[in-house]
Amino acid sequence: MSEETGDIQVLIDLMARLPGLGPRSARRAVLQLIKKRGQLLIPLADAMQTVGATARECLNCGNIGTTDICKICENDKRANGQICVVEDVADLWAMERSGVFHGRYHVLGGTLSALDAIGPEELRIPRLIDRMTAENVSEVILAMSATIDGQTTAHYIADQLPNLKVTSLAQGVPVGGELDYLDDGTITAALNARRAL
Amino acid sequence: MSEETGDIQVLIDLMARLPGLGPRSARRAVLQLIKKRGQLLIPLADAMQTVGATARECLNCGNIGTTDICKICENDKRANGQICVVEDVADLWAMERSGVFHGRYHVLGGTLSALDAIGPEELRIPRLIDRMTAENVSEVILAMSATIDGQTTAHYIADQLPNLKVTSLAQGVPVGGELDYLDDGTITAALNARRAL
Repeated sequence: MSEETGDIQVLIDLMARLPGLGPRSARRAVLQLIKKRGQLLIPLADAMQTVGATARECLNCGNIGTTDICKICENDKRANGQICVVEDVADLWAMERSGVFHGRYHVLGGTLSALDAIGPEELRIPRLIDRMTAENVSEVILAMSATIDGQTTAHYIADQLPNLKVTSLAQGVPVGGELDYLDDGTITAALNARRAL
Repeated sequence: MSEETGDIQVLIDLMARLPGLGPRSARRAVLQLIKKRGQLLIPLADAMQTVGATARECLNCGNIGTTDICKICENDKRANGQICVVEDVADLWAMERSGVFHGRYHVLGGTLSALDAIGPEELRIPRLIDRMTAENVSEVILAMSATIDGQTTAHYIADQLPNLKVTSLAQGVPVGGELDYLDDGTITAALNARRAL
């Protein structure tokens, strides 16, 4: 039994529910917060209040922002006819960090999963199909994870868009990857998709 | 360049400054917070506000609590004459979780360190010496880390308290520890402190 007082224990218990933090790191984080009250604890509490009050999903694509229509969907320069379909907002952010894609996104909010009873209606798939007529879409790029559920979802979406150019991310050796450390599936995919130099 | 809007990016940057969280896990944590706004984000912001307004160091021992004198120092049942000296509040909490110590604590707030120019005045050592006369102390248990700075601090404090029973935590094989994985220093300490069965 620890003697931390109630308020501090409440904060530790809440912090321990964040992904990547367990009870031990939550305690460390809370001690750090209390030590850096002015620089960290108060600004963090304020930022959480702000985000809690303003964060919402884009009504068009499912991205998270502070407006009903996100900055990417509002940006006319990005209306180049390409829509990149991702599972989650984290994947959208990862694509944006690469800086290589200049079209718009569509965030599904997960993958189809028979085990978890997640069908097309639970995801943002009907909305994606609506966008095909509403926007002048020339290509749909499926950027799902290379997992069974991700690939099942990609194939399902491709089937729903028969008259469109539908592509998916290439599979192969990651940049910097050493063959010795790659799994058999990746080596097989890289070999099958080999290119002439 | 990611397209997260300003408020969300501010929150991510602040979260990334917590110990144990890097930029990637901070992004994951913030997405989780936004998904669980009602159960996690708002309660966490409220708990931070509360702790920010109430947390303070105990004027007597340096423990963190929400009152000027902490619950342990206020608890008459713990006035058994034993004071356990620890480096940090996290160490105090660890001792409390073991549930085996029933006296009071003294939190130094660090260790002596020539490199970082931390002398006795930077720590809570003068206050510890004051407590020797103010409280009826029969034993001082030094529970510093088994590091060079920790042991230097322990020896310094022992020198300051010449007429008192001063003890320190035993060094040896941790419970569940396998000899093969222990460092030489621990094996040496355990051998030197061997006991008759």
